Amino acid sequence: MDDILTYIEHHMQDTVARLQAFCRQPSIAAQGVGMAEMAGLARRTLAEAGAQVELVPTAGYPVVVGRFAGAGSKTLMFYNHYDVQPPEPLELWDSPPFAAEIRDGRLYARGVADNKGNLVARLAAVEAWLAVRGKLPLNVVFVAEGEEEIGSPNLGPFAEENIQTLRPDGCIWEAGYKDTKDRLEISLGAKGILAVDLRARTLGRDLHSANAAIVKSPAWRLIWALDSLKGPDERILIPGFYDDVRPPDDRDRALLAAWSFDEAGQLVEFGADGYLLGLSGEPLKEKFLFQPTCNVCGFHAGYGGPGVKTVLPAEALAKLDFRLVPDQDPYDILEKLRAHLDAGGFADVEIEVEGPEFPSRTDPGDPLVAAVVAAARLAYGVEPVVKPLMAGTGPMYELCQRWGVPAAGAGVGWTGSRQHSPNESIRLDDLVQGIKHIALIIDEFSALSCS
Amino acid sequence: MDDILTYIEHHMQDTVARLQAFCRQPSIAAQGVGMAEMAGLARRTLAEAGAQVELVPTAGYPVVVGRFAGAGSKTLMFYNHYDVQPPEPLELWDSPPFAAEIRDGRLYARGVADNKGNLVARLAAVEAWLAVRGKLPLNVVFVAEGEEEIGSPNLGPFAEENIQTLRPDGCIWEAGYKDTKDRLEISLGAKGILAVDLRARTLGRDLHSANAAIVKSPAWRLIWALDSLKGPDERILIPGFYDDVRPPDDRDRALLAAWSFDEAGQLVEFGADGYLLGLSGEPLKEKFLFQPTCNVCGFHAGYGGPGVKTVLPAEALAKLDFRLVPDQDPYDILEKLRAHLDAGGFADVEIEVEGPEFPSRTDPGDPLVAAVVAAARLAYGVEPVVKPLMAGTGPMYELCQRWGVPAAGAGVGWTGSRQHSPNESIRLDDLVQGIKHIALIIDEFSALSCS
Repeated sequence: MDDILTYIEHHMQDTVARLQAFCRQPSIAAQGVGMAEMAGLARRTLAEAGAQVELVPTAGYPVVVGRFAGAGSKTLMFYNHYDVQPPEPLELWDSPPFAAEIRDGRLYARGVADNKGNLVARLAAVEAWLAVRGKLPLNVVFVAEGEEEIGSPNLGPFAEENIQTLRPDGCIWEAGYKDTKDRLEISLGAKGILAVDLRARTLGRDLHSANAAIVKSPAWRLIWALDSLKGPDERILIPGFYDDVRPPDDRDRALLAAWSFDEAGQLVEFGADGYLLGLSGEPLKEKFLFQPTCNVCGFHAGYGGPGVKTVLPAEALAKLDFRLVPDQDPYDILEKLRAHLDAGGFADVEIEVEGPEFPSRTDPGDPLVAAVVAAARLAYGVEPVVKPLMAGTGPMYELCQRWGVPAAGAGVGWTGSRQHSPNESIRLDDLVQGIKHIALIIDEFSALSCS
Repeated sequence: MDDILTYIEHHMQDTVARLQAFCRQPSIAAQGVGMAEMAGLARRTLAEAGAQVELVPTAGYPVVVGRFAGAGSKTLMFYNHYDVQPPEPLELWDSPPFAAEIRDGRLYARGVADNKGNLVARLAAVEAWLAVRGKLPLNVVFVAEGEEEIGSPNLGPFAEENIQTLRPDGCIWEAGYKDTKDRLEISLGAKGILAVDLRARTLGRDLHSANAAIVKSPAWRLIWALDSLKGPDERILIPGFYDDVRPPDDRDRALLAAWSFDEAGQLVEFGADGYLLGLSGEPLKEKFLFQPTCNVCGFHAGYGGPGVKTVLPAEALAKLDFRLVPDQDPYDILEKLRAHLDAGGFADVEIEVEGPEFPSRTDPGDPLVAAVVAAARLAYGVEPVVKPLMAGTGPMYELCQRWGVPAAGAGVGWTGSRQHSPNESIRLDDLVQGIKHIALIIDEFSALSCS
């Protein structure tokens, strides 16, 4: 593989220039900015590299699909997204978010870590293979959607219609980051999510608060309904909520033990004075990755300004997200939530579903994982960290596990990448290593005997 | 008294013109608009009527004090305020809030019911006495503060310094309204209030909600803290909260029974589908007037917009008001609230006090009440309704009960006056009756033998 790795090193100038071009094209799905332009740029770039490219229409932004035919019947899929988070607040950026400025060996831009850097890295690895060897050792398919940052509402339908044609044997997920000790983190799954709005309304209009003596308060209704969901011991009280939670097995625990979570550093970063329930060590890591949550993203009712306004608000709204772990089903949890509220006397509290996603995970013993880990050892010279799950959520289930496709996430970010925040960046040294990693994954995965 | 009552009728044109002039002078304490001008107008008008007037300075807006010396040593105090509520939302007014337009026998203006109409009515009654009889049968003192609509923060200190000089034997409180059956309501007291902000903060900044698995949520902290204050049975759970609640006695119950509360009409007005705990009849009225409340005026944390934002907010704020009944003490309740939160493990929830006011009440058997009721029978020809307490709050304790001064509220408003709302109005027929009522109160109260 030295020939390919050397080629990659020699072509970094072009690769960085291409990444800058990608980053200079805004593509903000939530704001509808630059989406068609970015899809077009991705299509042209893939086609120039030799891919057969198609913009697959969806109910929202199209999915860019690019195929490179290689040797044999095995197919490796790269999942990426060409949309980025909104760049605001702009005033906190040291250089404009779409300027793609390079300073001190870092490229700063909205979306460079999440995940245009990865899209470009994967393409650079494929190009190196083609330039040096003339042919890929397996088929490669790029799937780049335009709606990851707005919840991937159309990736499931896309997969339903196309996965049987694409026939991937494994998938490299969109992004990845080095940890605080500069070790690559490889993620094998993601939590699911059920995001809901809970709404209580008891009055036609806001009233003088003297009337609180005799009419129902929607704020109190919602406080009591929420209290019935979770108490200070953090145990979620919806009957059956934990029924499908699969506890970590011995392999998961070994991975957790190998994962060095920077407890003290994270506390400083969070501005918190301690972890929930006083947890630390293995129980903390297990709770982070293997336990579901019931979080209040927002609660709004009545007056919130300075001083006194003695009002009885007509309506109250709570926005919740439940992060779900394998094998919880967001639709099942929704039913249980409704039944629990009804049984508790809160039939009047309305539920609006905002975003269900299934949890996903790939077996740590899957050959894809072995290939990604082996490639990482070669590319980085440092043992990578394998995380059995991410604490966050992504549409991995819809594209991969639902169809029996193993997936692993790895990428060119680092612990300071600040994805979703101002001054998002990657380090160019990480970019080189990340491209080599992908080239080596292609090699390792193609060498596996087909199952 | 026919001579005085006839004089009042014959001078209504001047009285209405003066009321329009008062209403056309904005005086919005909360916004600092027109306050000096309105204090000046009140001073000039009182002085022209023959009063000895003083603008007594306070830490905020001055109190206008106007004295009319009469026969004997008895003194009747009229408490009013020259500030008004902000007029917003302006677009809901059918005529500009400070135009003081007359339509269909009603005068529409911000503050006309609450309570410039009453200030003008009381002055007109005094002028009628002076014009017809040459002298008042008792001393009259006007006390008009400029901060009632912002919580009367300086009325207590004013009373402390001045009440011994003013030496009132009784007080007519600022406002009053006819009920849905056009019967004058006379109020003998007001609930007190403790308004507090409760704040929880657990994080240095908003975090990605995946972190809810391992760090404390301020929204949940506040939900649990609030739940510990009151459950769905509406019983307030702070130990000792009800210790000083004086239950209604037989006289109170008789007054409650005579008070016709329009249950069905109010529900329509509230847009509610029923009363709290299914109450109706006497228990509903008793709860409205004689039970304290713990109300959520506002609750704000995190995201409240459309769609999903999976955030773990750094801070949560709840704004509460406790309406207090005799003999609860807002400072005592504050201590008990703090102790209860501490004992429940919520020492981290901060309390900021926004506005404490004591509850107040005058003995229904007080001679002042008899005088006000007797005068009402003569002025209105309809038996008035005596309410032992208002469900709302006013600074009556600070100016009256604290010094042993009996007080009763009566005024020129009606059930549709919409005080604090757009299209505030009084009916000019009610204004005439209200002026006569005051003239008759002066007569009745002066005739009482001094206690």
